[in-house]
Amino acid sequence: MGIVLGPNQYGKAENRVVRIVRDTARHEIRDLNVTTSLRGDFAAAHTDGDQSQVLPTDTQKNTAFAFAKKHGVTSPEDYALALARRLVEATPAATDARVSVEEFAWDRIEVDGRGHDHAFVRRGAEVRTTQVSLDDGAAAVVSGLKDLTVLKSTGSEFKGFLKDEYTTLPEADDRILATALTARWRYAHAAGIDWNAAYGDVRALLLATFASTYSRALQETLYAMGRAVLVAHDEVEEISFAAPNKHHFLVDLAPFGLDNPGEVFIAADRPYGLIEVTVTRDG
Amino acid sequence: MGIVLGPNQYGKAENRVVRIVRDTARHEIRDLNVTTSLRGDFAAAHTDGDQSQVLPTDTQKNTAFAFAKKHGVTSPEDYALALARRLVEATPAATDARVSVEEFAWDRIEVDGRGHDHAFVRRGAEVRTTQVSLDDGAAAVVSGLKDLTVLKSTGSEFKGFLKDEYTTLPEADDRILATALTARWRYAHAAGIDWNAAYGDVRALLLATFASTYSRALQETLYAMGRAVLVAHDEVEEISFAAPNKHHFLVDLAPFGLDNPGEVFIAADRPYGLIEVTVTRDG
Amino acid sequence: MGIVLGPNQYGKAENRVVRIVRDTARHEIRDLNVTTSLRGDFAAAHTDGDQSQVLPTDTQKNTAFAFAKKHGVTSPEDYALALARRLVEATPAATDARVSVEEFAWDRIEVDGRGHDHAFVRRGAEVRTTQVSLDDGAAAVVSGLKDLTVLKSTGSEFKGFLKDEYTTLPEADDRILATALTARWRYAHAAGIDWNAAYGDVRALLLATFASTYSRALQETLYAMGRAVLVAHDEVEEISFAAPNKHHFLVDLAPFGLDNPGEVFIAADRPYGLIEVTVTRDG
Amino acid sequence: MGIVLGPNQYGKAENRVVRIVRDTARHEIRDLNVTTSLRGDFAAAHTDGDQSQVLPTDTQKNTAFAFAKKHGVTSPEDYALALARRLVEATPAATDARVSVEEFAWDRIEVDGRGHDHAFVRRGAEVRTTQVSLDDGAAAVVSGLKDLTVLKSTGSEFKGFLKDEYTTLPEADDRILATALTARWRYAHAAGIDWNAAYGDVRALLLATFASTYSRALQETLYAMGRAVLVAHDEVEEISFAAPNKHHFLVDLAPFGLDNPGEVFIAADRPYGLIEVTVTRDG
Repeated sequence: MGIVLGPNQYGKAENRVVRIVRDTARHEIRDLNVTTSLRGDFAAAHTDGDQSQVLPTDTQKNTAFAFAKKHGVTSPEDYALALARRLVEATPAATDARVSVEEFAWDRIEVDGRGHDHAFVRRGAEVRTTQVSLDDGAAAVVSGLKDLTVLKSTGSEFKGFLKDEYTTLPEADDRILATALTARWRYAHAAGIDWNAAYGDVRALLLATFASTYSRALQETLYAMGRAVLVAHDEVEEISFAAPNKHHFLVDLAPFGLDNPGEVFIAADRPYGLIEVTVTRDG
Repeated sequence: MGIVLGPNQYGKAENRVVRIVRDTARHEIRDLNVTTSLRGDFAAAHTDGDQSQVLPTDTQKNTAFAFAKKHGVTSPEDYALALARRLVEATPAATDARVSVEEFAWDRIEVDGRGHDHAFVRRGAEVRTTQVSLDDGAAAVVSGLKDLTVLKSTGSEFKGFLKDEYTTLPEADDRILATALTARWRYAHAAGIDWNAAYGDVRALLLATFASTYSRALQETLYAMGRAVLVAHDEVEEISFAAPNKHHFLVDLAPFGLDNPGEVFIAADRPYGLIEVTVTRDG
Repeated sequence: MGIVLGPNQYGKAENRVVRIVRDTARHEIRDLNVTTSLRGDFAAAHTDGDQSQVLPTDTQKNTAFAFAKKHGVTSPEDYALALARRLVEATPAATDARVSVEEFAWDRIEVDGRGHDHAFVRRGAEVRTTQVSLDDGAAAVVSGLKDLTVLKSTGSEFKGFLKDEYTTLPEADDRILATALTARWRYAHAAGIDWNAAYGDVRALLLATFASTYSRALQETLYAMGRAVLVAHDEVEEISFAAPNKHHFLVDLAPFGLDNPGEVFIAADRPYGLIEVTVTRDG
Repeated sequence: MGIVLGPNQYGKAENRVVRIVRDTARHEIRDLNVTTSLRGDFAAAHTDGDQSQVLPTDTQKNTAFAFAKKHGVTSPEDYALALARRLVEATPAATDARVSVEEFAWDRIEVDGRGHDHAFVRRGAEVRTTQVSLDDGAAAVVSGLKDLTVLKSTGSEFKGFLKDEYTTLPEADDRILATALTARWRYAHAAGIDWNAAYGDVRALLLATFASTYSRALQETLYAMGRAVLVAHDEVEEISFAAPNKHHFLVDLAPFGLDNPGEVFIAADRPYGLIEVTVTRDG
């Protein structure tokens, strides 16, 4: 029984590409974190130190920056697709490419009630994401967001759960529900989609469904959120969530002669619940 | 020459206090990170292990949560002042208290064009801060913000600087100027101020001045920002900034046959310039 | 075409379990970060908010702490296996459990040339890891380490690579090679293995091979490291690496009249190369 | 009452300087994070955008790297002193310079029982620090360490403390005491000191005293640690500590029919106690 090379890939991670569009005095900004990787027949690099088929990660970096100019960035998805195609073309040994992009959002600074032409303020911790795969020529796009932190101060319960000898949790009729959401949705195809419009609409649906759904568990809320997206977006095949249940514990103020009807909480860091759910289509 | 105890303080750091106001169906949320500390005559705790004058940090924590209910949180400043007074009162050996508060902002989630009653989304990485000092009964309030990340895609130069034999930097007529701003302003007094209104107005002034000022250096921009605040706010005595110059380097695309007139940049992490400026009043 | 629940799991992440063994005056410490999750038929929780089959994540947390006492922690692997078995037993709807453990290492503080009985100092950033899977009763163990940061100041080249029109990287005869290694190795079975001895030996092999192998690319070094482990450890079926190529760029000191024969480098944060390799057995 | 420029300084933060000494086949490595800043008469840069007296932070960066070659790095202190002197010399308007250095430690990788010539492994999270000030020609050196994480599993109590109506903490006869220590000690002068030997000895004294001192409070332990350093090191004038009390709470296992005599703890992240103490000399 011999020892052999198994699955492998290589690339350049976290290229911080900032693209300013300055065709007019009213600039636009796209602020990206780009990671590329290649798969294919790179065995010789591993077993013999032979780099002749290896497009350096430095070249992948150069290409990421050059394509921000040459191809432009109308959306993370469109840019990532172009970059993936180029990397495979440039590398005969490569069969597949992955390009992941995180986009950081900026708002215009308000001056005299109007958004400024070229001054911006970072919107928040939330990040728009996409991962484009180009496998043997077939493109797949999984877009999403991460660190979208949401909280409901009521409209959430957790009760009727399974109990064993290690269970001490009391049932909760009314609790805070909070999470820092990661969502990733797979598009049915990679052409003919308005990526920015789709992103904005999915995000709005996720938020509105989180807000409007009475929650008997984070699982139920996530399932409802996923369902809402699949109902409204035929072009989305599947959506997955990873959602930490960021616990907010009601503080016992009784020792101090104070009642606490859902008003004062301690936000805990660790441990946290971690709920992972995929909602998909059958048939 | 003997060995003696020098300056010392102790307290509880990073109490994550979340206060929900639910007097009506339209909830409000204040999300705070509270740090307390006490100074005074605590020598015996250090030299003899005698805790009889030491109010435990656990009690300081309890007080922070209890006061979120008993006193309430109309602003970080008002809450911190009440908490500081209580901690000094409860601790005979304490002469001074410091209470620092970071506040994380939340927006209502939009549903059908209207902010939801009890569902919220975290606004961003930016944090509102205050530090209240109560020294021998005298209160001082230094409020501020941190991690307000701003960027100008033009309207910034850097030239005419001092050169020596280690200087390689070319002069720049038009560059990106970006920073993650920390600002702290000291109020002239601790009474009669509408803390929330003052905060909102100072923040807006900082942003608008950053946007509107042509920058010949980050120093000049910060000075202009500080000046604007002092001109508009008599109740502010002094304002200080710590501003990393977050470098965005123009990428050389010439080797690839592409020009790059201020369009494609690499955002660098380290090193960064660090500019610290105080703007104050004389006389 | 309907909308259905896809893969899902839930559990409690990052339980910070510290276990002191104090049977004698010479204490031992195990410092763990424990994450549990369950898979199985939990559809009703998602679609109907029915928790009757859901063992709360709070109970999973309690069990993690109780088992640190009841079962003890002779190794992360042994503890995780016991915990996984318990969680599946306690949850009729669960078919599978995953328990992941990170262990933080402590050394005894030296006093008068001898390790102290009950005073410890954290060894470093490096973390020992394991992930135990219990799927339909079958246990699998994947152990590893992360954040093992290593560097060679010579004995590394990178040349003869593929070039295209975006390639600007010069060939390097002698460069710094550095990485913060993540390694994960899968054991052939989950019984009869001395987990601590195996861990120590694999770690030592990885380090010695990194040090001793002349590197024509990080890929070649990783392959050699994996090969060394599989040759020496029959009980290891496969080993995978994720290795950021932490670039150290030679600083051009020529403008200052100084030569720089591999002496002064700038350590870069981003971007970095990212090499992922699996070494496995055939047949 | 006019608006004027107050205290200000500027410089380059976090230059990641790696210096390899390769005079023989047995290499040495110094891995530094260097921050420089200048103070003086830089008013024109703030008020008029006039950079003619401003040595760019980019030049400060270049100088930091050039001096790693030209002056060398026998210790962070010696290197920082040389760099501070150069920066003041190069900048006529500067009266003062500050140079802060963090040093990350590396061990040689063991191969066949011997440390390798040019392969290294990062020692840990602990960081050696120094801050050199050169004010109007007078040098001052404050050296230290941070993130030295230590823990005692017994030999620590906390009782007899002040109680008020918000006190719920029970007295503790035997608890875990843990902290991630920051220490900074000021040297009496900047010449004639063996910086590396002094650092090593102070560090060892801090550890041994932490281990050996029965603790009635973290304050008492820190005071004893500081006292031990001042007793042994005449050249140290003063030492300051910032020490988070990293709480480890005993887990209540009684509901599960298990006793817990100081064996199973939960390590908490926040809040934490924060103890700050200076030990100094009188007269």
